[in-house]
Amino acid sequence: MNFADRIIEEVLVKKSHVCVGLDPRWQRIPRSLRKNYGGSRPDTAEAARQVIEAFNEGLLEAVKDTAVAVKPQIAFYEIYGEKGIEAFWNTVKIAQNKGLLVIGDVKRNDIGSTAAAYSRAYLENSSPVRDNDRVLPDAITINPYFGSDGIEPFLQSCEKNDRGVFILVRTSNPSAAEVQDQKLVDGATVGEKIAGMVAEWGDSLKGENGYSPVGAVVGASCREEAAELRARMSSSYFLVPGYGAQGGGVEDVIPCFDYEGLGALVNSSRGIDYAYEKDEYSDDYRRAAKKAVQDMSEKINSALAEDPGLAWEEAE
Amino acid sequence: MNFADRIIEEVLVKKSHVCVGLDPRWQRIPRSLRKNYGGSRPDTAEAARQVIEAFNEGLLEAVKDTAVAVKPQIAFYEIYGEKGIEAFWNTVKIAQNKGLLVIGDVKRNDIGSTAAAYSRAYLENSSPVRDNDRVLPDAITINPYFGSDGIEPFLQSCEKNDRGVFILVRTSNPSAAEVQDQKLVDGATVGEKIAGMVAEWGDSLKGENGYSPVGAVVGASCREEAAELRARMSSSYFLVPGYGAQGGGVEDVIPCFDYEGLGALVNSSRGIDYAYEKDEYSDDYRRAAKKAVQDMSEKINSALAEDPGLAWEEAE
Repeated sequence: MNFADRIIEEVLVKKSHVCVGLDPRWQRIPRSLRKNYGGSRPDTAEAARQVIEAFNEGLLEAVKDTAVAVKPQIAFYEIYGEKGIEAFWNTVKIAQNKGLLVIGDVKRNDIGSTAAAYSRAYLENSSPVRDNDRVLPDAITINPYFGSDGIEPFLQSCEKNDRGVFILVRTSNPSAAEVQDQKLVDGATVGEKIAGMVAEWGDSLKGENGYSPVGAVVGASCREEAAELRARMSSSYFLVPGYGAQGGGVEDVIPCFDYEGLGALVNSSRGIDYAYEKDEYSDDYRRAAKKAVQDMSEKINSALAEDPGLAWEEAE
Repeated sequence: MNFADRIIEEVLVKKSHVCVGLDPRWQRIPRSLRKNYGGSRPDTAEAARQVIEAFNEGLLEAVKDTAVAVKPQIAFYEIYGEKGIEAFWNTVKIAQNKGLLVIGDVKRNDIGSTAAAYSRAYLENSSPVRDNDRVLPDAITINPYFGSDGIEPFLQSCEKNDRGVFILVRTSNPSAAEVQDQKLVDGATVGEKIAGMVAEWGDSLKGENGYSPVGAVVGASCREEAAELRARMSSSYFLVPGYGAQGGGVEDVIPCFDYEGLGALVNSSRGIDYAYEKDEYSDDYRRAAKKAVQDMSEKINSALAEDPGLAWEEAE
């Protein structure tokens, strides 16, 4: 089944549009989990692997019924070298065993022949080694700076293996505008230009619900911009970062959805992973995370129920 | 010492501007090295690690006196999961022990807080774990799509630890123009706009030779464009991919150099790593690689001797 159709199936079952980022930051992992492994920093990379996996296992169990997807951000694993990468891949497996879609937030890309190697590493079932039992993510994030020949290998993997990509279009960080909002001579911004390319790349791959596996990262930072991008990429699922810790609220994410209240997965990372730091359930990071996901999901669902189609009206 | 000054020191000693890409592609590694580890594909990821390290060790020993730097492209290591990453890090260590500068071709980036994690993973001496003896690359490649707050953490690491970055400006692949050559309303292309940002980011970090540790990736694909970018980024060292297998010749790379014949490292990957496939030394990939580096280096040096300052004249 097309990756977007798989998302929609889960969204309808779980009545949730939430994606939980898994960004293990050592010093914010509950003390009880790490106290025997080195306190302020891990004793060894192997200790880091064990603590990260235990932390993620708890989070995944807590959010598995109310989150649709999880998004491990690989930078926080790469810090620990090969042991961190082991934790990343084990996290992918644990998450999928709990029925969660997994978006590997790797933001890779390169020239075509190298992009093919990345695509093989993350999205290809054809095993690179004989004894491999690696469980792959359902999708990854990728960077568009190389143009179409850096994208093509990923599209092939998506089609062949029912996987997906989310291509960076408009990110949620303060300086995103420096590149992405630059005006081109044809009147579009760089981000809008890339949005048009994303729409074309996905055009021939649409599934039953009209969505292609070629999604877009569209940050929760500007309502008008989100509405414009939704209109330009009508068959792309959006992965919407920036909710919560980065300052985006529910009103910012609503224009990313379509008329039927589909089309966007809203991500929160720190706001869920470390909800325990300022929560009534401060003694149990899992209960705190579960409650944070429920709250977030309810807010999004209520706003969608009140305001269907808002994004489209504003864009027209 | 500033990273650019470190490059120049090596360039002057070795009389070479060559960077050798280390892209281990299993099926092209000499059969003799891999025949006991699985033939057409590795038996295990551990077998892949051993063969890749042995292959790289041979290449590094062969090119250590005539190449200035090496550039492992991490995609070809990530294919093998944590074992591949172990091979990547061991390759960094082996290369540095042989007196080569190491450019980790990782093309990472993300929003500021995540960019900081990547920077810590690749460029920070402050160890993430207590027992860490990881040897870090001297520089890495990074992607500019997030704007300055995705760059800032890397600049801090460069300054603190005498490391460098090469920021993607104009890549060497056929579709690079789709994004990078788009014209902005101010007349510059997207790549030229980013070139201006690169120049600014490096401006306060210039070393003894006038170069900052903030370099640029400028593909060997268009002479005029290279000359224009050299003028816009007068204090940035260029990493020039696309020589050889990707079709760039010596005449394409010359405009990347400055008046004094400095300012660019020219990279070849497949053309060196697999030179044995079509060489008189077909029985020894190390001798073939050594000869290929010598030939490439001599060509570049002769062209520079004949044509000093060409790039600047054309741009003016």
